[in-house]
Amino acid sequence: MTDLFNDIQPIVCRGGKVFFLDQTALPVETRWVEIDSVEACWDAIKRLVVRGAPAIGVAAAFGMALASRVVQESGFEGYQARMKESAEFLASSRPTAVNLFWALARLEKKIADSQDRPVPEIKELVEEEVLAIQRENEEVCWAIGVQGQAILRDGISVLTHCNAGALATGKYGTALAPIYVAKERGLCVRVFADETRPLLQGSRLTAYELSRAGIDVTVITDGMAAVVMGKGWVNVCIVGCDRVAANGDMANKIGTYGVALLAKAHGIPFYAACPLSTIDLATPQGADIFIEERDPLEITEGIGGRATGVKAYNPAFDVTPNQLITGIITEAGIVYPPYAENLNSLRGKR
Amino acid sequence: MTDLFNDIQPIVCRGGKVFFLDQTALPVETRWVEIDSVEACWDAIKRLVVRGAPAIGVAAAFGMALASRVVQESGFEGYQARMKESAEFLASSRPTAVNLFWALARLEKKIADSQDRPVPEIKELVEEEVLAIQRENEEVCWAIGVQGQAILRDGISVLTHCNAGALATGKYGTALAPIYVAKERGLCVRVFADETRPLLQGSRLTAYELSRAGIDVTVITDGMAAVVMGKGWVNVCIVGCDRVAANGDMANKIGTYGVALLAKAHGIPFYAACPLSTIDLATPQGADIFIEERDPLEITEGIGGRATGVKAYNPAFDVTPNQLITGIITEAGIVYPPYAENLNSLRGKR
Repeated sequence: MTDLFNDIQPIVCRGGKVFFLDQTALPVETRWVEIDSVEACWDAIKRLVVRGAPAIGVAAAFGMALASRVVQESGFEGYQARMKESAEFLASSRPTAVNLFWALARLEKKIADSQDRPVPEIKELVEEEVLAIQRENEEVCWAIGVQGQAILRDGISVLTHCNAGALATGKYGTALAPIYVAKERGLCVRVFADETRPLLQGSRLTAYELSRAGIDVTVITDGMAAVVMGKGWVNVCIVGCDRVAANGDMANKIGTYGVALLAKAHGIPFYAACPLSTIDLATPQGADIFIEERDPLEITEGIGGRATGVKAYNPAFDVTPNQLITGIITEAGIVYPPYAENLNSLRGKR
Repeated sequence: MTDLFNDIQPIVCRGGKVFFLDQTALPVETRWVEIDSVEACWDAIKRLVVRGAPAIGVAAAFGMALASRVVQESGFEGYQARMKESAEFLASSRPTAVNLFWALARLEKKIADSQDRPVPEIKELVEEEVLAIQRENEEVCWAIGVQGQAILRDGISVLTHCNAGALATGKYGTALAPIYVAKERGLCVRVFADETRPLLQGSRLTAYELSRAGIDVTVITDGMAAVVMGKGWVNVCIVGCDRVAANGDMANKIGTYGVALLAKAHGIPFYAACPLSTIDLATPQGADIFIEERDPLEITEGIGGRATGVKAYNPAFDVTPNQLITGIITEAGIVYPPYAENLNSLRGKR
């Protein structure tokens, strides 16, 4: 199935069927995978067929919809118990991005709030809520893009890491949303995309979606970020994030912490961009965020690997401490330090 | 031709024939390539069949020996003119590493100093000088390893970038020489090897040669260096270098500047290791070093690339400013700041 859908988006639902764009195959191949069960959804999240914190949340929501459809129990308690099992199962796919847990919790709350209704009706409400999560995600990304205009100007050069674009969310993305909105408004923005080893989300996904959108993007290896900063070619860094702790520390794709340190060394502002659903006030600080470690073979023998038989260390994320973050771009505005205070004051807006 | 020679070494001469270990094929395949002409030598240097600043110098010296053998002129002027042409040709293969120019200049001087002798005798002297360059390179590396003991201790953990080991030189290497000598002396040293994109010299070559030598080595992607430093897992960084300017700025494999900045941010000492022949007092500062840019396809479609059709920037080296360098380990001792003064005082020792 090639080019089935026009816009770049990671997840589509057509005629009740759910499809994920297989991001492990991009850009070599545009392949859509039909996801027909909660197990297939779990597997697709685990294997990074779908990735990016917001998209993982939406994917897990669709997993819940698929689970809901096949629940046999006609009584509320039975239905709720089965759905709770599915939520726990989906939660075990990838531990770092909080959006996954946020989406599952939202659907569980929807179910709990509907306990007086017949199960077939609850199933419909769940499906509606899933589509609402997806739709709101796109709206939120657009709003992040609009808020991000405050830090952009015509001719600016942005360095980003990993992929926090349309492929990680829905239309616009998070870190890339300000760039897409700037483009729509006629501004010229140049982008340096860290290729982002081991899985090359930068060169495979970010460069792919930005160049398709007609935005000037240059891929660099992760080790070149310091050089392009040193040459004065980078005005601002914008990255996505997988979880923001209550004190403003944030987890994102491995390599982000290094980018933040290099930005500081060169006096370049460093922003994270994310929906409010990525902010996890229940996690006090970055050290409390569980960092997923993945198979070392991703480095030595996976996409781009060529070093059979050697030992490797493969944390999927790292934590950037709050003092390295200039601001956090959300749909409700840009949050600046002191983060503990300013993130907490957003509580009502979520 | 597999496992033709026992020790890991990039260049061997047997029965008058010259062989390079094809480092583009390692570690998947151990393939020796016979180099039978100056053109084949140029091509092998250009394509990175042989790489690493000191090894490039030795390779170019063998290229001169091969050129010398086929010179037809029997008079000195004709011979010298042909050899000068070959030196200029070899010098055009890779512009950043100074060792290449150093080896060529040494052979040209040998020829000039021998002008009173018959050409057949000069040809023998050139062959002897080439073997002396190779032998001295190994001795120098061993001496660098001994000098480097001053910064190592049992149980220490070293982070290195790219490959500055046996494969880049001869036995011992430069950055890895202190580690090999420490191992011979019974010390336990742990190594983190940056994989070093785009060509993965870290995961393909450094991890390969260290693990063959029984040294504990863990590969990380370049973007993970900050994290392992942040965890306190790195006590010292040691890298090779391709050219040291008179003020102590130094060019090395792309990504080195970033490692130096990250080391500084974490309070970790950062050393470069090189023979005195890498110190180029004729180059005042790093900004004067010509940085080779290579084909962007190395990033998008080469070893490890998977991003057809996107634009990339591919400088092969970067410059680390002197203020980020704790010391420079040479065969004559460790040079500390102020570099302009202390490097100049080494002039007599070269």
